[in-house]
Amino acid sequence: MSIAHVTVLGTGVLGIQIAFQTAYKGFPVVAYDVGSHAIERARAAVEVLAARYLKDVKDADDAALRAARSRLTFTTDLATAARAADLIIEAIPERLDLKREVLADLGQLAPPESIFATNSSTLLPSSMAASTGRPDRFLALHFANEIWIHNIAEVMGHPGTSPEVFKEVVAFARAIGMEPIELHKEKAGYVLNSLLVPFLQAGAALLVDGIAQPDAIDKTWRIATGAPMGPFQIYDVVGLETAYNIASAGDEKQKAFARMLKETYIDKGHLGVATGKGFYEYQTK
Amino acid sequence: MSIAHVTVLGTGVLGIQIAFQTAYKGFPVVAYDVGSHAIERARAAVEVLAARYLKDVKDADDAALRAARSRLTFTTDLATAARAADLIIEAIPERLDLKREVLADLGQLAPPESIFATNSSTLLPSSMAASTGRPDRFLALHFANEIWIHNIAEVMGHPGTSPEVFKEVVAFARAIGMEPIELHKEKAGYVLNSLLVPFLQAGAALLVDGIAQPDAIDKTWRIATGAPMGPFQIYDVVGLETAYNIASAGDEKQKAFARMLKETYIDKGHLGVATGKGFYEYQTK
Repeated sequence: MSIAHVTVLGTGVLGIQIAFQTAYKGFPVVAYDVGSHAIERARAAVEVLAARYLKDVKDADDAALRAARSRLTFTTDLATAARAADLIIEAIPERLDLKREVLADLGQLAPPESIFATNSSTLLPSSMAASTGRPDRFLALHFANEIWIHNIAEVMGHPGTSPEVFKEVVAFARAIGMEPIELHKEKAGYVLNSLLVPFLQAGAALLVDGIAQPDAIDKTWRIATGAPMGPFQIYDVVGLETAYNIASAGDEKQKAFARMLKETYIDKGHLGVATGKGFYEYQTK
Repeated sequence: MSIAHVTVLGTGVLGIQIAFQTAYKGFPVVAYDVGSHAIERARAAVEVLAARYLKDVKDADDAALRAARSRLTFTTDLATAARAADLIIEAIPERLDLKREVLADLGQLAPPESIFATNSSTLLPSSMAASTGRPDRFLALHFANEIWIHNIAEVMGHPGTSPEVFKEVVAFARAIGMEPIELHKEKAGYVLNSLLVPFLQAGAALLVDGIAQPDAIDKTWRIATGAPMGPFQIYDVVGLETAYNIASAGDEKQKAFARMLKETYIDKGHLGVATGKGFYEYQTK
């Protein structure tokens, strides 16, 4: 694998996780964001992550976490971010125009052999490939939240992605401790959300139709399949605002679920695990 | 709870599990089937179950299992089966005409206060209620396979079911070690299959569309959600013939999955865990 220097664009929830995990696994990483405030917030997020790694990751100790931090640098200058990168992973906001613009800029600023990857959850790589000026060296590399625990990386090319580049990125994903999930075709939602969304929608339909209550539905799934969480527990983890956004775009039943989410929970500030209350109540620290 | 004597009709895979679990929890149980061959097979199944309980159930020992066996009697005479039953659970084949006929016979043979319950997975209780002659004392009580491990019992009335009868049956479910799942309306597939079927279909669609392979799909689900099994592992447990029957009744994509199941697995005798091979290979004893 020829990937040695990695750049991550965007230091939001997932961006900073990708940057930190990559640094933790020994790669020098440049993390880019658009202003000093964002960088400050990202530095604070690194401290929160380091504490989580100490708790959750078997081989994590102070020395390893210090080393990870030392490999991670921040910049607000896109040219600096792009200059030496073998792989640039973008995790900027989910707006197609914005992504196209940034990828086009990168196409000018990065070495011609750099690989570009998008972490977009909702946009297909084919919708941005042309902007990169190097469509053969562009694909999607999609992470799940809490990547040090839920360590999958879905690798999905567009029709013009070079098979060698695909393989390089699969190898990179493995090198940073992920289980690479290879998608052989473009698919909205990748594998994970293609399974998760219909499952969550089925749970929502049972509730909206008045068939059973969230705790009964979750208990059924847990006991019958041995899974740790039923659909409403997952909704609480995903966050009820995200659930609302997805349900609002669905059919009439899902729209009814979206209204229920808004009126019963979101309007009262109950957004799921993050706020200590959603379908269930959670101990807050 | 007024339920003391229980009768189970049908000693197939689930029928004998219901009968044995009920006897294990202290109830005298009459198990009915239609001939001496079926009864012989049921007696053999009890021995297999007793061995599984020893392994899987914390408080199971030889004395407890002997006591369970002693509370379980068999008959091929419907009048004998019905005579003293406070609760009759039917687990006979999934044919509406057959169920209606047997329920009508029971209506004549059982005491007027007996509660009747159907374990049907695919037929709604409202489609059989009139045959019983006591629709207010009839509902669905639906178990999952390996009930001593996956101990849910979905309780689902039809519009004419008496709320008191519903409560009685919920209490009975709890008394035999189940977690009762209360459904407030009739719903084909209950809670469990209403969640499971769309989830499994989503997995099948990813495979049929050539997006990813079964092991990658399963791994994604396991790692991202912490569940012990992905969709194809569950297909192997459910059995590929059952999967085929369900998929054959689905849309074009599910029909394509059914054809693939038949050609790649079923025609070669690979039916899942039960035969040692399905999407995965299993150690056979």
